[in-house]
Amino acid sequence: MSENIFFKKKGPFKLKSLFKGNNSFKEDFLVSDFKILQNANKKDLTFFDSVRYKEHASSTKASCCVTTERLKQYLPKNCVKVIVKNVLLETAKVLKNFYPTADSDFPDMSLKKVKSAKFSKVKFGNNVLVGKNVKLGQNTAIGSNTIIESNVTIGKNCLIGSQVMIKNTLIGNNVVIQDGSKIGLKGFGFIPIKGKNLRFPHVGKIILKDNVEIGAGCTIDRGSLDDTVIGENTFLDNQVHMAHNVKIGRNCMIAGQVGFAGSSVIGDNVSIGGQAGISGHLKIGNNVRIGGGSGVVDDISDNSIVMGYPAVPLKNFLRRNKNE
Amino acid sequence: MSENIFFKKKGPFKLKSLFKGNNSFKEDFLVSDFKILQNANKKDLTFFDSVRYKEHASSTKASCCVTTERLKQYLPKNCVKVIVKNVLLETAKVLKNFYPTADSDFPDMSLKKVKSAKFSKVKFGNNVLVGKNVKLGQNTAIGSNTIIESNVTIGKNCLIGSQVMIKNTLIGNNVVIQDGSKIGLKGFGFIPIKGKNLRFPHVGKIILKDNVEIGAGCTIDRGSLDDTVIGENTFLDNQVHMAHNVKIGRNCMIAGQVGFAGSSVIGDNVSIGGQAGISGHLKIGNNVRIGGGSGVVDDISDNSIVMGYPAVPLKNFLRRNKNE
Amino acid sequence: MSENIFFKKKGPFKLKSLFKGNNSFKEDFLVSDFKILQNANKKDLTFFDSVRYKEHASSTKASCCVTTERLKQYLPKNCVKVIVKNVLLETAKVLKNFYPTADSDFPDMSLKKVKSAKFSKVKFGNNVLVGKNVKLGQNTAIGSNTIIESNVTIGKNCLIGSQVMIKNTLIGNNVVIQDGSKIGLKGFGFIPIKGKNLRFPHVGKIILKDNVEIGAGCTIDRGSLDDTVIGENTFLDNQVHMAHNVKIGRNCMIAGQVGFAGSSVIGDNVSIGGQAGISGHLKIGNNVRIGGGSGVVDDISDNSIVMGYPAVPLKNFLRRNKNE
Repeated sequence: MSENIFFKKKGPFKLKSLFKGNNSFKEDFLVSDFKILQNANKKDLTFFDSVRYKEHASSTKASCCVTTERLKQYLPKNCVKVIVKNVLLETAKVLKNFYPTADSDFPDMSLKKVKSAKFSKVKFGNNVLVGKNVKLGQNTAIGSNTIIESNVTIGKNCLIGSQVMIKNTLIGNNVVIQDGSKIGLKGFGFIPIKGKNLRFPHVGKIILKDNVEIGAGCTIDRGSLDDTVIGENTFLDNQVHMAHNVKIGRNCMIAGQVGFAGSSVIGDNVSIGGQAGISGHLKIGNNVRIGGGSGVVDDISDNSIVMGYPAVPLKNFLRRNKNE
Repeated sequence: MSENIFFKKKGPFKLKSLFKGNNSFKEDFLVSDFKILQNANKKDLTFFDSVRYKEHASSTKASCCVTTERLKQYLPKNCVKVIVKNVLLETAKVLKNFYPTADSDFPDMSLKKVKSAKFSKVKFGNNVLVGKNVKLGQNTAIGSNTIIESNVTIGKNCLIGSQVMIKNTLIGNNVVIQDGSKIGLKGFGFIPIKGKNLRFPHVGKIILKDNVEIGAGCTIDRGSLDDTVIGENTFLDNQVHMAHNVKIGRNCMIAGQVGFAGSSVIGDNVSIGGQAGISGHLKIGNNVRIGGGSGVVDDISDNSIVMGYPAVPLKNFLRRNKNE
Repeated sequence: MSENIFFKKKGPFKLKSLFKGNNSFKEDFLVSDFKILQNANKKDLTFFDSVRYKEHASSTKASCCVTTERLKQYLPKNCVKVIVKNVLLETAKVLKNFYPTADSDFPDMSLKKVKSAKFSKVKFGNNVLVGKNVKLGQNTAIGSNTIIESNVTIGKNCLIGSQVMIKNTLIGNNVVIQDGSKIGLKGFGFIPIKGKNLRFPHVGKIILKDNVEIGAGCTIDRGSLDDTVIGENTFLDNQVHMAHNVKIGRNCMIAGQVGFAGSSVIGDNVSIGGQAGISGHLKIGNNVRIGGGSGVVDDISDNSIVMGYPAVPLKNFLRRNKNE
């Protein structure tokens, strides 16, 4: 993972200075960035808050990790453990040192009405607003009143509809985004505190691979520390909601009004019927079919067909309803 | 409740002139406004159409009330009862005399491209359109292509996204509204009549208290006669729908794609999972947790945890699914 | 059905040239258009892919029809049968010959900021963008930042909100469309092919009859070969999603966040509660009431009241939940 092009990073910071008053560790050195377990390198800080991610924990290259007394056993020996009670709270606080502006979507004030001459072979509707350092591929068309914030990259042969918002996003070739969708927003992540919640910084981005199609009225949140990703040739219908860090594989069909809670990972060739909901932090295998209206609350293995609320194998769902 | 700043009121009207041909009452006097039971003062008209609101009925200060033969017993002695068959139909008709333009959202034709000089210490994106008599607090930022209709007030340190619509709304300090949300719309209230429904005037407003956050792609309808309110430090995720008159308390977490039908009242510290639906005219207590995908059709008492469709206490939901 | 005003048609084509290498038929002649079974005339090509539509098949006037070995028995004798394995795939391919640009929503690049003088007695907000050959009736008002693409017709006394998109649509009189809705989009129709799905051309339009009301944040897709239709005096609440070819009758009430999958036909006087979902290709009778949150997966006969997921008669739903 190279430099973050969407959010300016501060630092490096001395580890001790980031966790003043915390005596659970003795070491002190310069920490250059805050990344997730699997992306962190030497000199990076990371966090580990759920046994669900113990594989990533055991192989992390991070020099130091915010975690709990109970979870520290899964981390490599040479990784400095910063022990806290509330991992997400401490992570949010420390992350704000590195990325002070990523916990809210401050509107891009550098937007200007685009001048076609600046982008050769790109077609623009009326009143298209574009930020700084935007890259647009040849034969791409962008509809009226659409906003493309700074540093966004869009590939060749893309069709971006009207009244669309795109920020913090890298888009491949032949991608279609229909009218009114909002891509790259800060996600719904915060530490609940009575009187004034603490927002979790969202420094991740969105990656839409080649041949993706996004319907109208969708909202797709960028990752918090990780990225939100849609794989090649996956199509989303209208009014789909994808929360932060969700990853969808290739060749998937996501019908209208489906909702994904944060950090779930969906395999390849998955089809999801209209209005289904996928809970957070789940793993949905390849070739899975999820019936419309289902509420998925558990991992699903490859090649399964499920339906219901909560979702169960289709034959169980049919039997459940036959018995009545 | 002071003067309605969003809708011009006509009148006063003589009571008899408002209900021509109705012989259920003898008194006649000037009626100055039409308000809900608990907000009405002397000389105001009110309406009472469900036993669910009998407490408010018994203590109303209104001089006169549209109601039914069956319900009139709950009203104070000195309140003139106007007896009708269809309370909502007669209310809608009479309300149109007081507020002739509130039954549809006529676009604000006084909008102009904002000039920064007019609002000191407020930052504006491109093509922000603002109506007359709008108040914006210091350090507030407003994204591109956003519309703020006349008489809206927004406090200090607010972040209003791009492509947002705000009308008939009063907003506190430190409020965040993400891209594309539509706030202050006429609600889905009408008297079904074959061939031409009669729209119920919506003269209420929206109140967003300090530290509220609204996600992207939300739709929040203003009140019909009452207000729609979101309490301090309550956060809504993307694509949430709030119908008219809904009141949400403080410190609540409302996940993505949740829907609230009209006039429900939600307590403080309530969390609601994604895609849950709350029926109309319900009372949800404090500290309640509602699981994702639930369909809530009954009142819920304080400190409950519910899930399911229809929603039941969590242990019942788990048992229900275990048995199968 | 007259000429398609929204999509330029090519052709006529020789039948043999459209199905090169297909030896299931011998005849050859000029084919002028591709239409659905019930709209096709002499010299038109049609398709027939489900026994559900056998009545339409037996009475079609089309000269030729793409179908399967199993289904050809239902077609008239004098209709030339083009036998294929995958009817929708072949239809999509051939349809692209007639309508090469209808498989994606290329933004209307002819949009211009409207000049009031061009439309007498129509009121416009700020930055309204209008395409070529748009017709707007008297006393219609259109909100700011709204886009009306070429060839759209809107009747008299309509209220079109702000930030709305309308394309490929014919609108009657007294129609209301609230802020941010997107009307007339390409639907979610494609032939799944690993690596690169084949989009089904959408050459149908949307018809909104007199006195229709559409809430805010709705998405309504145009028909693929057929039209998407909403009947007189039907009201939709916010965030409703209607897929391609759906037909809703008169005097219906559709509450917030309801979703309709493709090609379902809804009768008159139907009410549907919030967040309900209607599967594809269903027939819902007249005077049907569908409870909030329901998942409808089967046809429903006239005058039924249903609820649940899957939806069942209301008394069964109540019993189902009582037993637990």
